[in-house]
Amino acid sequence: MSSSSFAFEINASDNFARRGNAVTAHGTFQTPAFMPVGTSGAVKALTSDDLEECGAEIILGNTYHLYLRPGEKLIQQLGGLAKFNGWNRPTLTDSGGYQIFSLQELSVIDDDGVTFRSHLDGSERRFTPEKVVEIQVALGADIIMSFDQCVPFPAVIRSAEIGVHRTFDWAKRGLRRYQELCNAVEVKSSLFGIVQGSVYESLRKLSAEQIVSLDFAGYAVGGLAVGESKEAMEEMLALAIQYLPSDKPRYLMGVGYPEDIFMAVSYGVDMFDCVLPTRNARTGMVFTSEGPLVFRNADCADDERPLDLNCDCKVCRRYSRAYIRHLYNQREITALILASYHSTYFYQKLMRDIRASIEKNAFSAFRGWFLERYLRGKDISQGDS
Amino acid sequence: MSSSSFAFEINASDNFARRGNAVTAHGTFQTPAFMPVGTSGAVKALTSDDLEECGAEIILGNTYHLYLRPGEKLIQQLGGLAKFNGWNRPTLTDSGGYQIFSLQELSVIDDDGVTFRSHLDGSERRFTPEKVVEIQVALGADIIMSFDQCVPFPAVIRSAEIGVHRTFDWAKRGLRRYQELCNAVEVKSSLFGIVQGSVYESLRKLSAEQIVSLDFAGYAVGGLAVGESKEAMEEMLALAIQYLPSDKPRYLMGVGYPEDIFMAVSYGVDMFDCVLPTRNARTGMVFTSEGPLVFRNADCADDERPLDLNCDCKVCRRYSRAYIRHLYNQREITALILASYHSTYFYQKLMRDIRASIEKNAFSAFRGWFLERYLRGKDISQGDS
Repeated sequence: MSSSSFAFEINASDNFARRGNAVTAHGTFQTPAFMPVGTSGAVKALTSDDLEECGAEIILGNTYHLYLRPGEKLIQQLGGLAKFNGWNRPTLTDSGGYQIFSLQELSVIDDDGVTFRSHLDGSERRFTPEKVVEIQVALGADIIMSFDQCVPFPAVIRSAEIGVHRTFDWAKRGLRRYQELCNAVEVKSSLFGIVQGSVYESLRKLSAEQIVSLDFAGYAVGGLAVGESKEAMEEMLALAIQYLPSDKPRYLMGVGYPEDIFMAVSYGVDMFDCVLPTRNARTGMVFTSEGPLVFRNADCADDERPLDLNCDCKVCRRYSRAYIRHLYNQREITALILASYHSTYFYQKLMRDIRASIEKNAFSAFRGWFLERYLRGKDISQGDS
Repeated sequence: MSSSSFAFEINASDNFARRGNAVTAHGTFQTPAFMPVGTSGAVKALTSDDLEECGAEIILGNTYHLYLRPGEKLIQQLGGLAKFNGWNRPTLTDSGGYQIFSLQELSVIDDDGVTFRSHLDGSERRFTPEKVVEIQVALGADIIMSFDQCVPFPAVIRSAEIGVHRTFDWAKRGLRRYQELCNAVEVKSSLFGIVQGSVYESLRKLSAEQIVSLDFAGYAVGGLAVGESKEAMEEMLALAIQYLPSDKPRYLMGVGYPEDIFMAVSYGVDMFDCVLPTRNARTGMVFTSEGPLVFRNADCADDERPLDLNCDCKVCRRYSRAYIRHLYNQREITALILASYHSTYFYQKLMRDIRASIEKNAFSAFRGWFLERYLRGKDISQGDS
């Protein structure tokens, strides 16, 4: 990966929790990092200014969506994803594997790749491991992901095993294509591998060993937070992460709730992404220090308090629950903006506080303090959706 | 109007164009002023922070909408409209007359008031001139409007005449109720009267004389920009404004396009409101220094330029037409935010520049310079919607 400008270093640790930073062609991001999800090039209902204000340092774009619209060629022509979306900071694109898993009725998987129909116009398309790398290199994200097969949950062991073998085969093919591209043109994207294996210990171990045998710039654990129990998620993560090299970033894909992030950081995960903060905001729920708050509910109708009593974000400094609830019920876009902003800020503040706690060797104490208040609120809320 | 904390002064003039400021209980706004429309307590797709950044100093709320949801009592309980919507600066509420005119199939007008059905739940409601003042005083805007009958365009002279007589009768009744309230409680809202008369010279003159005979804090010209020609609008405005006292603010309701604002300022109008900048933004068109731009069109697909080449707003400094068009076509909320922000900034910048030109006795030159570039762009655009 000679063309890559990627570097990762660990500055502090607290038991297995790690505090580091990753340097990319578009700048540095601090870890553990939470990446807001900008599916089509924008985090829904937010601007790049908003994301900067919230403290986000890296955002994710979805390869599947960007490939369909506006197409990787246009984004390449306009200077790559970071420039296109006015972000100008680090970006990561996913592999498209999860979207194909989500759209399984529109896709047919074989050993060579996946044929699927566009959810936009029904046109037939095909992803192979090579093609997915080519698309992502054209999109120009700083971190790109190997094409994987994320099996649905629950999966019988035989399906999960096929998924693991395909994921390894596709990882090798994608890496080969990536190296060819690096030899031919300037590639600023760094390629990460993905461990699969559903909830089967033997398969997670096998997949981790296989993927780590390949020289990726970082390693992700995929196929979790797809419906399995929190115990199974933790067990699989704890198992897989033992095999991941400690000098490269570890990314737990699609996770998650604050409690999941604390759990995963405690095992040494460095990167996260999840649609929860913004998706839930658009359906009337925000994350707060005292647990999830369903601000669309009637008990917020005359509540003059901010969304989160312990938050210093610009939404909490200015607007009441009553106001945001009113706007939400009137289907005002402004409600979605305000709620998305707060929850995005909440997640970024959480990561800042986690990073600071690791630096002070106080991660475990911070986790206990935070979750005691958060989960107490969660218990009395009907809010977690 | 002893309870009012309203004051208005003219600091400069250039022919009939006036440069002033209005002091309210929630602060001062500079005139000529353009008020963004926050129908339900928010300007659609924008936050109060956005409005401040754009330079807005006063925003409008719709009495009809706020009365239905969340209700004037809740807003009063939560400290009034400016506090409720996190704006904390001057606000104005309209009379509801225009909404009832817009919803005419749901309303029945008689000499005493209007019975209508809520567009939300079909419930029967009634507005009288007294009730409309009571609602607005409860909402607590700095400027409130007398209940008027805005007749549809075109109207036969007999209908327009009935509208003028009712508007006068209702103005007297509303003013009486307002004075009763001022004597009973602390009222920080100042009441403006509204001139009607459709496109009939004799009725405009009659209505202006009638309304001006009553002691309002300011005077509005209503019932224009409702479908009549631009020539008729100008003629009616020019006629009515002669009767309005020069020491009180003059408000042209529901106007309008940049060229209309220049025209009206040239006759001495001080205040404007219109949904155009934000409504059009949400349908894919923004206002620019070179005329309207339909950014949803295919010719923006690979256009790296900002929405407006001569704009220094944060949207134009950061995002390309190609990006905003892509987001718009993907139905991303962020597209509506970016477009609404730019057009709102464009209008506020226009007003700042108009005010500066009056101070320099250069209004006419600025009008010519601006419109030459703007209308040239408009001619070659297919964009004005």
